Amino acid sequence: MDASVTPLRHGGLSLVQTTDFFYPLVDDPYMMGKIACANVLSDLFAMGVTDCDNMLMLLGVSTKMTEKERDVVIPLMMRGFKDAALEANTSVTGGQTVMNPWCTIGGVATTVCQPNEFIVVQCCKKGCDFPGPIVRWLGDVLVLTKPLGTQVAVNAHQWLDQPERWNRIKLVVSEEDVRKAYQRAMDSMARLNKTAARLMHKYNAHGATDITGFGLLGHAQNLAKNQKNEVSFVIHNLPIIAKMAAVAKACGNMFHLLQGLSAETSGGLLICLPREQAAAYCKDIEKQEGYQAWIIGIVEKGNRTARIIDKPRVIEVPAKEKDGELW
Amino acid sequence: MDASVTPLRHGGLSLVQTTDFFYPLVDDPYMMGKIACANVLSDLFAMGVTDCDNMLMLLGVSTKMTEKERDVVIPLMMRGFKDAALEANTSVTGGQTVMNPWCTIGGVATTVCQPNEFIVVQCCKKGCDFPGPIVRWLGDVLVLTKPLGTQVAVNAHQWLDQPERWNRIKLVVSEEDVRKAYQRAMDSMARLNKTAARLMHKYNAHGATDITGFGLLGHAQNLAKNQKNEVSFVIHNLPIIAKMAAVAKACGNMFHLLQGLSAETSGGLLICLPREQAAAYCKDIEKQEGYQAWIIGIVEKGNRTARIIDKPRVIEVPAKEKDGELW
Repeated sequence: MDASVTPLRHGGLSLVQTTDFFYPLVDDPYMMGKIACANVLSDLFAMGVTDCDNMLMLLGVSTKMTEKERDVVIPLMMRGFKDAALEANTSVTGGQTVMNPWCTIGGVATTVCQPNEFIVVQCCKKGCDFPGPIVRWLGDVLVLTKPLGTQVAVNAHQWLDQPERWNRIKLVVSEEDVRKAYQRAMDSMARLNKTAARLMHKYNAHGATDITGFGLLGHAQNLAKNQKNEVSFVIHNLPIIAKMAAVAKACGNMFHLLQGLSAETSGGLLICLPREQAAAYCKDIEKQEGYQAWIIGIVEKGNRTARIIDKPRVIEVPAKEKDGELW
Repeated sequence: MDASVTPLRHGGLSLVQTTDFFYPLVDDPYMMGKIACANVLSDLFAMGVTDCDNMLMLLGVSTKMTEKERDVVIPLMMRGFKDAALEANTSVTGGQTVMNPWCTIGGVATTVCQPNEFIVVQCCKKGCDFPGPIVRWLGDVLVLTKPLGTQVAVNAHQWLDQPERWNRIKLVVSEEDVRKAYQRAMDSMARLNKTAARLMHKYNAHGATDITGFGLLGHAQNLAKNQKNEVSFVIHNLPIIAKMAAVAKACGNMFHLLQGLSAETSGGLLICLPREQAAAYCKDIEKQEGYQAWIIGIVEKGNRTARIIDKPRVIEVPAKEKDGELW
């Protein structure tokens, strides 16, 4: 389960909460704040929760920054975090700030909700609080709401200043390609999974998780492992930020992107949807947000595992460059 | 206000939550875990909240530890944290762990409660959610539930291994005194303010705060500043861990302990109580917990400030050494 769920003393309500903090990975402090906030909220969204009641911010100010750096960088990062919270229709009411060798940013997202406000995968673990009826997943398909490849894009962008690394990938991408992929990664990471979560209810999603540090396959395996249904997930398609599949191959497969194991930051939701509703779900997300979502796999009878087929289809995102547009 | 209070969409309930994390300050990882947990919960207790619904743990594992150090220290610290949570009748359901140059430990404490479950000082700030009737504080007294001097004790204990520092204080304390003060400080910091919070309701407390990084006077000033009553706090007595007032003087007043400005970790509650109930409050805490509490000052008409009188009375805690006993 992505967030912690605690039954409350009050009339059937549950406390759903999650926390996350990590280290800056993009140069733009404002965008970094937005990404950190979107990343924290993503665990709530993965459970179909759309309303966050409160956020706290966790901040580590680097002891290595000059006073001036501190005064410029930290307020920008905080503003990004708060703006993303506002976008999610919630607000930051407190938190904790400390001095630390490394800069850190993160937060806590909390909501109190009725049972019908969140979608929990039927758990097969002993002592689980959700032993409800088993939902039949057979015939479901898997939808992914953001492209993969954020880690590859962020690293490739750093390599622009490291000739030795750059030389390894410059045959397959231009500087312009990498800068654009980096912009796309930032935009994608800062984007909230809120609409994706809301539409899970409309199209009867059976369960979901969000893609972060363990990569697509890692999180798919977690989702499969922890539920009652005797199913497995088979992934056929890999939507990847344009050119990043080529970069991943050119640098010796160090990210394991095509194996679904490249870490993502603030990635999309991976959602189990009834087959007949999935296309409508994807269409609706595109209509409301202007971002694509993809059907990437199917749910089969199996032993609670997930795998990617031998030669998955790589979907370049976007499929074609449009002048002056990111996606 | 010590914790964030958010009115919820559901029947008059409020979400009360707080987060805190910092760096180890004692050698014993298990005790450090307990202290960190007690410190997080203290912000809820300061608002008279006695039931915490859920906790998350925030952990930074030092990159400088050897694998063996990590395998021994971190589980002990986690166990201490969880045991203190259990003692407070709550549990830790999640959190986040990262690698970090410095070791960090902390958490998030959350409760959902009815308005009568927490005691909020009437706030004078614009836009405050608690504009209720003004409680008359004139005639109240101030009670403190833990002795001061934890920072002095922790530092003095480190100085046992630093001859230059030790020489400055060895005329006023023995090694044995310092070791005992350190044990007392650990015991005090790891102790929960839960009973203190529960008794606030029984004895009609009007408001409280917990003493931590800003010291007694700093937090008293915060409490005074942020409320509607035209009052000030005058502090007459300073309960201090035995011998630590002498240490503070001998090392050139660097802690500003007698000025009420020495930082405390997981300190006691500072509570405004009706004069006629304060003695009974202190007696009850001692009966239930075996720890003293003290009336340390009075509430006067004033301009929302706090001060310590010129020559405050230092109360040594405990007053007399008892063989084989800490307090």
